Amino acid sequence: MTLTPAQARSAFRAGLRVPTSGYSPGWTQANLISLPREHAYDFLLFAQRNPKPCPVLDVTEPGETSASIFAGDLRTDLPAYRVYRDGELVEERAEVRDLWRDDLVSFLIGCSFTFEAALIEAGVPVRHVEAGSNVPMYRTNRDCRPAGALSGPLVVSMRPVPAPLVATAVRVTSRYPAVHGAPVHIGSPAELGIRDLDSPDFGAAVEIRPGELPVFWACGVTPQAAVMRSKPSFAIGHAPGHMAITDARDSEFLVP
Amino acid sequence: MTLTPAQARSAFRAGLRVPTSGYSPGWTQANLISLPREHAYDFLLFAQRNPKPCPVLDVTEPGETSASIFAGDLRTDLPAYRVYRDGELVEERAEVRDLWRDDLVSFLIGCSFTFEAALIEAGVPVRHVEAGSNVPMYRTNRDCRPAGALSGPLVVSMRPVPAPLVATAVRVTSRYPAVHGAPVHIGSPAELGIRDLDSPDFGAAVEIRPGELPVFWACGVTPQAAVMRSKPSFAIGHAPGHMAITDARDSEFLVP
Repeated sequence: MTLTPAQARSAFRAGLRVPTSGYSPGWTQANLISLPREHAYDFLLFAQRNPKPCPVLDVTEPGETSASIFAGDLRTDLPAYRVYRDGELVEERAEVRDLWRDDLVSFLIGCSFTFEAALIEAGVPVRHVEAGSNVPMYRTNRDCRPAGALSGPLVVSMRPVPAPLVATAVRVTSRYPAVHGAPVHIGSPAELGIRDLDSPDFGAAVEIRPGELPVFWACGVTPQAAVMRSKPSFAIGHAPGHMAITDARDSEFLVP
Repeated sequence: MTLTPAQARSAFRAGLRVPTSGYSPGWTQANLISLPREHAYDFLLFAQRNPKPCPVLDVTEPGETSASIFAGDLRTDLPAYRVYRDGELVEERAEVRDLWRDDLVSFLIGCSFTFEAALIEAGVPVRHVEAGSNVPMYRTNRDCRPAGALSGPLVVSMRPVPAPLVATAVRVTSRYPAVHGAPVHIGSPAELGIRDLDSPDFGAAVEIRPGELPVFWACGVTPQAAVMRSKPSFAIGHAPGHMAITDARDSEFLVP
């Protein structure tokens, strides 16, 4: 199942609706948030002020349907989309062609799926990949730094890591600062305001086995949480876990 | 001469006018570009599209005279400033208090001085620090990716490195992606359109000894080159090499 990005996008365009973790390994996956031009500066500033959850990989011109790192069609080539009006999630759907507007600026934000191949390569198991399910994501009690009209909580993804491999997981993911980088928290969900790991706000719960610690990385669903709190008139995002598969290589984001 | 950032800023405010390379080691230095609010989105997008020369460390609200990583006064606490009107450099001066405007958004951009301490620590000599002079900087024949009304050439700084240490210099600086990171070019100035290393466009020439290669890093003077080409009505920058000494630690920008 190693599709090229173009093949994967074509399958999603044709109707395949699945989480993209594990798809097109070696190719960078991205979160999408499309906002009217009037909100673009606030969003770009929000991203600059919150680089861990919002590392910007690419920004389109208003109305553009592709991007420099995404040769496909942003309106159809992700597996699923979420549509927001005044901050309210009004619809999840397979494509957004008829909702597109000439003033929409699209932001592609780094995704932690990018470093999962590196984790697996380093011997760190990734439970939701093994389970074939979507990664669990949680709203936290930590607020992002606001920018203009935009504010919202930090959202994190969680992967259980065997205790002896936690340092390896930190070391490996630190080398990918453009796709969330090192974990923001290790071990204690309560400190992040997460009451129940079995009830994620997005995605699906995974088993945490004895001897494993929950490790939390900043998540590119954070912009959608900001949309929900800040209520811009209109926004389109990817469905969490259902990412844009870009034409950029993971290795471009590897440091050093 | 190890002043704290506050002490250094106080000395500059009192009139000291020197290049800041080597000042307050361990504390992050930054390029300044202040633009009217109407140009702020184009600039932030320009920076996102050109992260090597324009890594944004901080952005102020319109009119603000300090920043989250800079507790001093942006109008007085740099050693020297350059003032542009319609893209024309009209003045270099010690402070810009009377020129400040309520609509100016200030951007602090990473500076390669940040990794010089790490280079020296790794045994890589830094010629302009040894010579007590300003780093040589050059306009290149490479254009940045434009954004809105902003376009301009890539500007680079140059450090001569003994051939056996070039790999070390790459490895060390790669770990600082937020302050220009790895070199953009090694060895052949002609390929960058640089005719004469002895005639830098900014700063001062340095000796290149036998067995040394010129190594080029993207430079935070690039925004001022974009101002000169794109001619916004008004802009203030730091005088090249005369940086903002911030309250951020170099170690915050170290990856991994």
